[in-house]
Formats: sequence, structure tokens, C-alpha cells
Amino acid sequence: MSPGTAPPVVPRGGGREAITRAARESFAERGYHGTSIRDIARGAGLSLSALYHWHAGKQDLLAAVIEESTAEYFGRCDEALREAGDDPAARLGALVRATVEYRVSRQVESTIAASEWRNLEPAHRERLAEMRSAASRLWADLVDDGVARGVFRCEHPDDARRAVIASCNAIAQWFEPDGGLGVPELVERYTAIARRIVDCR
Amino acid sequence: MSPGTAPPVVPRGGGREAITRAARESFAERGYHGTSIRDIARGAGLSLSALYHWHAGKQDLLAAVIEESTAEYFGRCDEALREAGDDPAARLGALVRATVEYRVSRQVESTIAASEWRNLEPAHRERLAEMRSAASRLWADLVDDGVARGVFRCEHPDDARRAVIASCNAIAQWFEPDGGLGVPELVERYTAIARRIVDCR
Repeated sequence: MSPGTAPPVVPRGGGREAITRAARESFAERGYHGTSIRDIARGAGLSLSALYHWHAGKQDLLAAVIEESTAEYFGRCDEALREAGDDPAARLGALVRATVEYRVSRQVESTIAASEWRNLEPAHRERLAEMRSAASRLWADLVDDGVARGVFRCEHPDDARRAVIASCNAIAQWFEPDGGLGVPELVERYTAIARRIVDCR
Repeated sequence: MSPGTAPPVVPRGGGREAITRAARESFAERGYHGTSIRDIARGAGLSLSALYHWHAGKQDLLAAVIEESTAEYFGRCDEALREAGDDPAARLGALVRATVEYRVSRQVESTIAASEWRNLEPAHRERLAEMRSAASRLWADLVDDGVARGVFRCEHPDDARRAVIASCNAIAQWFEPDGGLGVPELVERYTAIARRIVDCR
């Protein structure tokens, strides 16, 4: 902080996280273009100038929201795979579990990342596309390995992979936390679907 | 037209269709909240007052774009099923074909319907949700019938149906018309995936 600058107001709930939380809520409710930086400041309990002390603006906040959720998804996948060992069927089950659990627990972020992706400016988009590709490669390596080892017999591994991911991702659109269907049961159902898609024998 | 009213300026390309086309392009490019009614008038080659002669405003145009594409999708599904006859596997293939062909030929509308759905006002949303449900029921009836007749052996028909639809819908996100993969080949691949998902014997 330069001499003479007032100490920053700490946002409601503390730190940058309170601002990204307010941004997430506004983007989910009204969309990126429907959200003003004033809406976000208000949601975080800050003045506009205090917000700018913590964040560079609406575009950076959109990128931060998507980056945080992408990083969390990648982390969950990576950990699930490390625990799963070497067997392709077990690894497939691990990635399905990580994806289903993520979509169920982060429905709002999933929707923002899908709907607002095109509103990222090129520099952010390029960087975040690289993060997305890394997650996508975990899936591709897993399916290709299962096919190479004869455990998965699908003829078109790229389409099988896309179908498995799309099936799991769509859960964010319809799942109701109080709908009576538990997450372990959901994981089991989508693991069975994924095994059929890759034709796992 | 009431006496003394000037004849309406006909939009570029003629009639209401030119305006919905301009709306579709703007919504796809900048999103609903990022699009002004002036952008749409400009795209259609009209003054703002001429546009209002043809359409009630941005919200009605969003509803018109989504309604038109939903009606087209439903029409394609309905026709495909009528041609397919009674066999559950043939009917599944018919709906997959209708969906894949629709997603490939109407990628822009597919993206708008997915991203801007939440920006519909309640009255429009309710009416269009009913249209969506009708399409969804075609799928549900088909899968339930196949299960009832023992042709499909999946244990959880609702999840199987959702997985098939999600797999086909996702094509709109990645398909490149000049990417070397023809639509008939794509239909064949996704029919095979759908048959595995419902466990069609």
C-alpha cells in the first residue's frame, strides 16, 4: 500500500473470496451482461472503490469464478485417479465419481462456466481453455488406455468420451438436492452408464 | 392497418423472419443482455420504429427464436418417429438421428436456447417449457416402451434417457461442419452409443 492510502475495507465475509462469491451469485442470477460491477460491490458489502482495491473489474471476476471452479474440478479428478490405481474400469469409475460429485455440489459454477464462457476476453479464454484441455486429457488418456488394453471395446473412443462427459455434466441441469436421489446412488448409475458407453467388459 | 398509417418498411430479406434472423445473430454473438433492440434493428436493415411495427421487443424476439427452434426440433422428432414404425430399437435410432441432425444443422439456435433460457420472462418460459416437455416425453415414452417390452435392459430408464439426450445435444458444442466427419457417420456412432446406454439387445 502506498503511503497515505486508506486501509482497504474488508468485504463482507473477508477478502477476495467474498467478492468472487458475490460475483458468482450475480452472474448466476442475471448473467454476465446483466450484472453490473455495482451489483457485485453491493453483494459483497463494499463501495465500488473498495471493490477496485481487491479486483480489477467484472471481466477479471468472471475469469476468477471460472478459473476457481475449473481448478477445483481438475483437482478432484486428479486425486480420484491417483486413488484409483491402474485398472481402466476403476479409473473410469473414479472420473465419473469426481465429475458427478462436482456437478452436484457446484451446480451454480457449472452453469456459469457453460453459459458465460463466450463472454471471456481472448486472453482469459486462452488460459482457461488450457486448464479445460488438461481435464479433458485426463478423460482421453483414460479411455484410450482402456481401449488399447482391450478393456473398453468401443469403436470410437473420442465419441465415447464425449458421451460419458456430457451425460455426467448434464446432471447439473436437472439434479435437485432434496429430490430423494442420493449422490452415491447417482454415482453408481452413471458409472454403469459410462461402462456401457465405452463397452467395458 | 389503420387509416393514415404509413405502410410498414419491409425488413431486409422480408417479413418477420428477417428480424428473428437478426435477433438470432445478435443473441448468439453478444448474448441477450449484451444485445440492444437497436442492434437487432440495424441487423435487419430497419429503423427502430419500423422494427416495433413487426415485433413487440427484445424479450418477444428471444421467445420467438427459442420457440421456432423448439418447434422445429419437435417436428423433426415427430416425423422421424412416424417413419420408424413400432420397433423400439428403430424408434431409438430415429430420435437419435433427428436430434443429431438438428444439433448439427442448428448449432447457433441450440446454443441460444441453452444459454438464454433463464432470460425468458415467466410467461414465455412456462409456454416454452411445455413445448420442451412434449419433446422430452417422446423420448421418455420411447425408452419406457423399450424397457417394458424387454428390448432395452437398462435399470434406470430416466437416467438412460437423459444420458442419450445429453450425448446427442453436446454435439452442438464441438461439431465442426468442415471437420471431415459426415452427418450420416455421426448418426451411426451416436445410435450405437444410445443403444449401449439403454442396453438394447
